[in-house]
Amino acid sequence: MTRFRYLSFLTDYGLEDGFVAACHGVGAQIAPGTDIIDVTHLVPPGDVRRGAAVLAQTVPYLPPAVHVAVVDPGVGTERRGVAIAAAGALFVGPDNGLLSWAVTAAGGAERAFSLTNRALWLDRVTPTFHGRDIFMPVAAHLAAGTDLAEAGQEIDPAGLVALPALEHRVRGSTAEGEVLTVDRFGNVQLTITGADAAGIGARPGGHVRLRTGRRRLTVPYRETFGAVPAAELVVYTDSAGLISIAVNGGNAAQRLGLPPGALVSIDVADATIPP
Amino acid sequence: MTRFRYLSFLTDYGLEDGFVAACHGVGAQIAPGTDIIDVTHLVPPGDVRRGAAVLAQTVPYLPPAVHVAVVDPGVGTERRGVAIAAAGALFVGPDNGLLSWAVTAAGGAERAFSLTNRALWLDRVTPTFHGRDIFMPVAAHLAAGTDLAEAGQEIDPAGLVALPALEHRVRGSTAEGEVLTVDRFGNVQLTITGADAAGIGARPGGHVRLRTGRRRLTVPYRETFGAVPAAELVVYTDSAGLISIAVNGGNAAQRLGLPPGALVSIDVADATIPP
Amino acid sequence: MTRFRYLSFLTDYGLEDGFVAACHGVGAQIAPGTDIIDVTHLVPPGDVRRGAAVLAQTVPYLPPAVHVAVVDPGVGTERRGVAIAAAGALFVGPDNGLLSWAVTAAGGAERAFSLTNRALWLDRVTPTFHGRDIFMPVAAHLAAGTDLAEAGQEIDPAGLVALPALEHRVRGSTAEGEVLTVDRFGNVQLTITGADAAGIGARPGGHVRLRTGRRRLTVPYRETFGAVPAAELVVYTDSAGLISIAVNGGNAAQRLGLPPGALVSIDVADATIPP
Repeated sequence: MTRFRYLSFLTDYGLEDGFVAACHGVGAQIAPGTDIIDVTHLVPPGDVRRGAAVLAQTVPYLPPAVHVAVVDPGVGTERRGVAIAAAGALFVGPDNGLLSWAVTAAGGAERAFSLTNRALWLDRVTPTFHGRDIFMPVAAHLAAGTDLAEAGQEIDPAGLVALPALEHRVRGSTAEGEVLTVDRFGNVQLTITGADAAGIGARPGGHVRLRTGRRRLTVPYRETFGAVPAAELVVYTDSAGLISIAVNGGNAAQRLGLPPGALVSIDVADATIPP
Repeated sequence: MTRFRYLSFLTDYGLEDGFVAACHGVGAQIAPGTDIIDVTHLVPPGDVRRGAAVLAQTVPYLPPAVHVAVVDPGVGTERRGVAIAAAGALFVGPDNGLLSWAVTAAGGAERAFSLTNRALWLDRVTPTFHGRDIFMPVAAHLAAGTDLAEAGQEIDPAGLVALPALEHRVRGSTAEGEVLTVDRFGNVQLTITGADAAGIGARPGGHVRLRTGRRRLTVPYRETFGAVPAAELVVYTDSAGLISIAVNGGNAAQRLGLPPGALVSIDVADATIPP
Repeated sequence: MTRFRYLSFLTDYGLEDGFVAACHGVGAQIAPGTDIIDVTHLVPPGDVRRGAAVLAQTVPYLPPAVHVAVVDPGVGTERRGVAIAAAGALFVGPDNGLLSWAVTAAGGAERAFSLTNRALWLDRVTPTFHGRDIFMPVAAHLAAGTDLAEAGQEIDPAGLVALPALEHRVRGSTAEGEVLTVDRFGNVQLTITGADAAGIGARPGGHVRLRTGRRRLTVPYRETFGAVPAAELVVYTDSAGLISIAVNGGNAAQRLGLPPGALVSIDVADATIPP
């Protein structure tokens, strides 16, 4: 029996209603003494991809936990609920891809179960609030020591719904990818990795050329925002290891109008450009 | 002596200032080891009715607790502070109706006290922050085992300020009510209950006719959002047992322009309407 | 060895990403059992002054703690990270003035250390997320009992970066200051203290004349919002002891268009103005 001291919790429930608190309350009653780390509850409504990205980038910094994530536009329909074991942690949520990037980042699913054991759910399950009625109760039971195999029917991890892998590649002297997310500061995170940038010869201290649509921009590639003057663009490898675009003291997403999914490529700019 | 492991906390203080944290800090000092479940702090400023609705719908899912709620446009004036016992829980806040729906949902006030015992307050009480200076300290003392009767002068529960009961009724084949709240997703929650809908013969799978002002809409009555195509209206019984209107993947409140308080009635739509 | 049960945490990280949770996770792993009180994470991006004001006004109500604050537009540049002892608490963050008002309010820095001991940091430090990689790990180690002197090289507290002290003074019958912050309710908090107001003879129950730019307003000076009719301006001494301007049930900052930094003076209005 494994007990988990921590639950993590990510949703698109927002903070203006009592939805998150109701889930906390359910968890507290099933697994008293478990601490809940709220990852975020401000995933845009129904934005599974955004939820998946935030979860995958946060989980590596969390203690061993049952990670509950609910961005679930298909709540109450035929989509399954699942519990997945990966790297000493458990992941609980809808089988819609939300968990997939975090599970992959953790090394892949070792075992997976469809949440079919109603004994772990609340007595009364509503069709529109499975976070409160199914996912949190199951997760809290698992945190309290219920065996994962009690969650329901074992399924082949290969059959889990997965979001498309993050597209990024190096072709010759160009690294290609797309906008993955935009954070609170307006920093634009690409799927291109720091390793990709190194692979095309980009080094902090030099410049890179960004291409997106018809636009071409030559931007300093630096280690941090403050390495360029205020209000200037900077490309850097961010805290998740991904190439990102910022404006020092400003908002790059607003400046550039780059939404998630926009295609971007970078290559090393002419060495004659002054640093 | 009853001790409570949990406090719950609902306010309109917002999250951009340190108001909520100051209250948490006060609670932590008076009752170390008590866990605080934040219900929400984003009640629109001064919106007692919204706070009351969120509290009443969340408390049933919380563990036994001292529930502190502060939406208090009359702070520092003659309105009383009160502590109320109901169904094994305690409720602490201003006597302005904020607590009334939650207390009613819990079965009604068993005992009530006016917060007159300054020994339970902070030493220095400011006229504009009773959440920090009075309500949280009193609640934390109660959670730590101070007897409820120590809170102040006992009062007749019948004299507590109550919001008007939620208006909803069935007249013949029509269920009538009003818009109670709009949640983060733009789902419009009515005061009409699922039981009311059943009482007029509405069954998930059929259609209902909504009337509000001059508008009439025939909408599928389903169990959940995903039972209708994307961007279509759906009526359903929500996770609080109330009839609600959603747009699958969209925002019904924006679509319909239905604010809290708007009168709405529903009846069963002609059976000839295709499902 | 001092252990701290509590960490407090203030940032401009926002709540829509996983940044705050990653820091919570790092803290939980280094100092299990430590409780984190979130002060706010909605400081406007890079607004050191606003962060400093919220921190200074909240800390007096928190239990003894390691206070971690990160509003850090210079992250990854030459600015130092520091740990400061003051009044039985510790303060950890960038040396950019963010901590200065809180430390001053606590009686001033007793000892200060530059965060140079990498043994207390995460193994891999990114240049753009020192909250997760340096500040929280150091703070958690300190909370868990690591001696402050282990944080790094001791520095002279006199060399710490400090924000300019809050400007306020009494000149004859006039108290002068500026707008310090605007809170969630739109209440406009001045640097003028309640003591300043008393010093010019203003007493709750009377009126004061506000001057800002070319504008002059005569406003009731009361103890609380509800002492004036709805939608009317009121001046009061707020819960932090500072003179503030509110609209009862409304938003004074919007009404008056007074941003932080705007100069304001007050004097006692002619006694013939009707109360």
